[in-house]
Amino acid sequence: MRQVADEPRMEADVIVVGAGLAGLTATRELTEAGWTVRLLEARDRVGGRLKGYQLGGGRVADLGGEYFGDKSTAIAEVARSVGVEGFRTFDAGQRLSFIEGRRYAYTGLFPWRMGPATLADFGQAVLKIERLAKTVPPESPWGAARASTFDSQTFWSWMQRNVATRTAKAFLTMAVEAAYCAHPADLSLLHVLYYANASGGFRYLLEISGGIQKYRFDGGAHSIPAKLAARLPDEVRLGAVVRTIEQRSDSVVVRGDGFTAHGRWAVVAVPLTLAGRIRYEPALPGFRDQLTQRMPAGSAMKCLAVYDEPFWRAEGLSGQVTSTDGPFRVAFDTSPREGRPGVLSAFVTGSAARKMTRLTRAERRAAVLDGLVRGLGPRAGRPADFVEQNWLDEEFTRGCYHGFAPPGVYTSFGPALRTPIGRIHWAGTETGVHQMGSMGGAIDSGRRVARELLARDADEFDPAAAIPAAVRRG
Amino acid sequence: MRQVADEPRMEADVIVVGAGLAGLTATRELTEAGWTVRLLEARDRVGGRLKGYQLGGGRVADLGGEYFGDKSTAIAEVARSVGVEGFRTFDAGQRLSFIEGRRYAYTGLFPWRMGPATLADFGQAVLKIERLAKTVPPESPWGAARASTFDSQTFWSWMQRNVATRTAKAFLTMAVEAAYCAHPADLSLLHVLYYANASGGFRYLLEISGGIQKYRFDGGAHSIPAKLAARLPDEVRLGAVVRTIEQRSDSVVVRGDGFTAHGRWAVVAVPLTLAGRIRYEPALPGFRDQLTQRMPAGSAMKCLAVYDEPFWRAEGLSGQVTSTDGPFRVAFDTSPREGRPGVLSAFVTGSAARKMTRLTRAERRAAVLDGLVRGLGPRAGRPADFVEQNWLDEEFTRGCYHGFAPPGVYTSFGPALRTPIGRIHWAGTETGVHQMGSMGGAIDSGRRVARELLARDADEFDPAAAIPAAVRRG
Repeated sequence: MRQVADEPRMEADVIVVGAGLAGLTATRELTEAGWTVRLLEARDRVGGRLKGYQLGGGRVADLGGEYFGDKSTAIAEVARSVGVEGFRTFDAGQRLSFIEGRRYAYTGLFPWRMGPATLADFGQAVLKIERLAKTVPPESPWGAARASTFDSQTFWSWMQRNVATRTAKAFLTMAVEAAYCAHPADLSLLHVLYYANASGGFRYLLEISGGIQKYRFDGGAHSIPAKLAARLPDEVRLGAVVRTIEQRSDSVVVRGDGFTAHGRWAVVAVPLTLAGRIRYEPALPGFRDQLTQRMPAGSAMKCLAVYDEPFWRAEGLSGQVTSTDGPFRVAFDTSPREGRPGVLSAFVTGSAARKMTRLTRAERRAAVLDGLVRGLGPRAGRPADFVEQNWLDEEFTRGCYHGFAPPGVYTSFGPALRTPIGRIHWAGTETGVHQMGSMGGAIDSGRRVARELLARDADEFDPAAAIPAAVRRG
Repeated sequence: MRQVADEPRMEADVIVVGAGLAGLTATRELTEAGWTVRLLEARDRVGGRLKGYQLGGGRVADLGGEYFGDKSTAIAEVARSVGVEGFRTFDAGQRLSFIEGRRYAYTGLFPWRMGPATLADFGQAVLKIERLAKTVPPESPWGAARASTFDSQTFWSWMQRNVATRTAKAFLTMAVEAAYCAHPADLSLLHVLYYANASGGFRYLLEISGGIQKYRFDGGAHSIPAKLAARLPDEVRLGAVVRTIEQRSDSVVVRGDGFTAHGRWAVVAVPLTLAGRIRYEPALPGFRDQLTQRMPAGSAMKCLAVYDEPFWRAEGLSGQVTSTDGPFRVAFDTSPREGRPGVLSAFVTGSAARKMTRLTRAERRAAVLDGLVRGLGPRAGRPADFVEQNWLDEEFTRGCYHGFAPPGVYTSFGPALRTPIGRIHWAGTETGVHQMGSMGGAIDSGRRVARELLARDADEFDPAAAIPAAVRRG
């Protein structure tokens, strides 16, 4: 970590706040176009919600985002450009599911032993969601024909009317908690449909081989931001916690403890909640600020249990364990490409995360291992290593996988999501269109802010006129 | 405003952040018990969401909170203690209501000309809400018998099933937008019931003479915090924007631009969103932080039109104008006790505020005056003075009247609302019990934190043990 206190006055065309995929992409695009950029990062690492863990022997695992699918064209392209290869997620053998206390072993998307009525009910619900999702345009969900109706209710309310059986409801709740890191009660139906459509479909979100979990990155997804950072002309300034962004008539001044950066423009590439925690001078219009008050991060922890080998594979098991009410909603085999060591990643999400975050670290470890033993037998209880990543506790993330919208937010405040305020432009996966909420959304947003800035004529810029009607102040 | 930069090292038993009613009450109670307190306020005034406006000739108006009722015992008692008198709200003459474009003149709670079916429908809905509200305990709404069901749906969803007629829905939506500053789509049903019960009843929230709007304060509600501040042993430190609160094993250090305050304990007495914008060292547990991400402030602006006299009174009108879709949801006669000058306060709340905040100041003025003219005739369009208070734009408030909960928040994160984290205790009307969300809730919360602190034995304090299980970290 380079000491920012030693840093002289920093100057660049653009000051970018946040060195996740969004900020790194914006910086890359702008520097390739010949602009100078200072990229500031609060942590001692780049990558944001992508974070690595050393398994020993040169092997690594991901403590944050790691999956992509055939529709994840943006992250695949960026990975290729820095020499990171994808490989197929391990997806052979039986899956295990604990649904309201009953154990099911199965292959495919859902346990057929749940019975034909439950299966038919779950199936029709997924089809309905799929059909509704297609009516929500990812570039402006608030513009959907039925946006107001979709945004006035929770997904839970929709389920009461559209899912008949208790077991299908429980299974769908589990799937949503795993994919959205929030309970159906928290989510606007509009957000559920928007994220599904932006991702490539609702079922696509849930699937492995046929979905967004089809591939992983050799060396870890977190190696992509690290390589992006290494190729930038200037070093990323780590440990730079931005506290204030001041806008002047012809410039921005970005300040933190012990540093000051001057630029013509600023890009804020952090989650909405964290963007709201920066102080702006002058203060941002209320219309923008109230949006940042209303898009909380999901609740997610990831726990990795490491074994000498993926012993479950020899027993004909995929390693996938799902549970409607256990300590995690889903665990996957996330062993490295070579298959050694064996790694299980337990995704403690939604209501599970909210319970588990209130326990001690030791209690959480015991609970997760209990859940794995329940599915995969006693060997699962004796890992060689165990690590947890509590994204709720991380000061510069404060939740995963992404920021979601409770009811009423997009239809009231949606237009503030991407609209620049004077010299400040907004990035981050929540502002992406293609694969909003995933790695692709971050890249999409980084490219968009770069395009926005390159299109601005600095010489003719009038900050007052630049505040669009959507968010202008009186 | 006293310059904080000149301030030597500040030391006290307790550092209180925020000089609204909550922080002032906590400071008053603690200093009366012999403790030393430093009260820090970001603005150049005390009072938070209570703010005054000079009408000239020594007369004043309130730009923020101003009403109270017979059940508002806490604010009435505090007002008396500083010599501020209440008086009856003007409530004679006909009320006007514009419901889906139609104009109604009436007396009582609702326009009887809406027709018997609509009236019966509205009446049964209010009774149902009243009955459900009584089942939600204000000290822990998440403990209600049906908390999970109430907290999984929006008030909009509840209305779809429980209000049959379109006009009753529109009228109820208007009432909720006026009382909660949010659209039914934004609100957890549980929050609607909780606020109603904590306030003294749902109908009580909507009524003037029989409700929480029965009285106002002579000299303005804002004169109460001013008088409270004047009686404290130490001056309130104005212009002190707190940026960081550091917890040590035996103390807290509260820092802002140009000042540092040392105490044994800290009280944070600002809205939840703003509490989340302070940086804490060590960082707060995720369980608490995610709550602060999830309780946005309502959307409210207040516009005052001032006339030589309240001309509407002579015409047999009360000055009350409500509208389901106009630029404000309700306007009231808020002339001073003496009846001169005439003042109309237009409450631009919920969806109205979200539209209006995106207009220019001139456009807003024109829209509000149009709405008043529509109700009260052309004289309403020629005020001697006009002032707007946009609470969304206020950096150190960011919305009014109070912070509300979308679905899923209280049942998941409710216990974090009042639970101290180490040496930091939480106040503010959102953490109050009696009249949560109003002036009474702020006082209630200030008294509670004072009790909490007085009950702690500083000598035997172990900060690790003091973090309760509800929010402890591993």
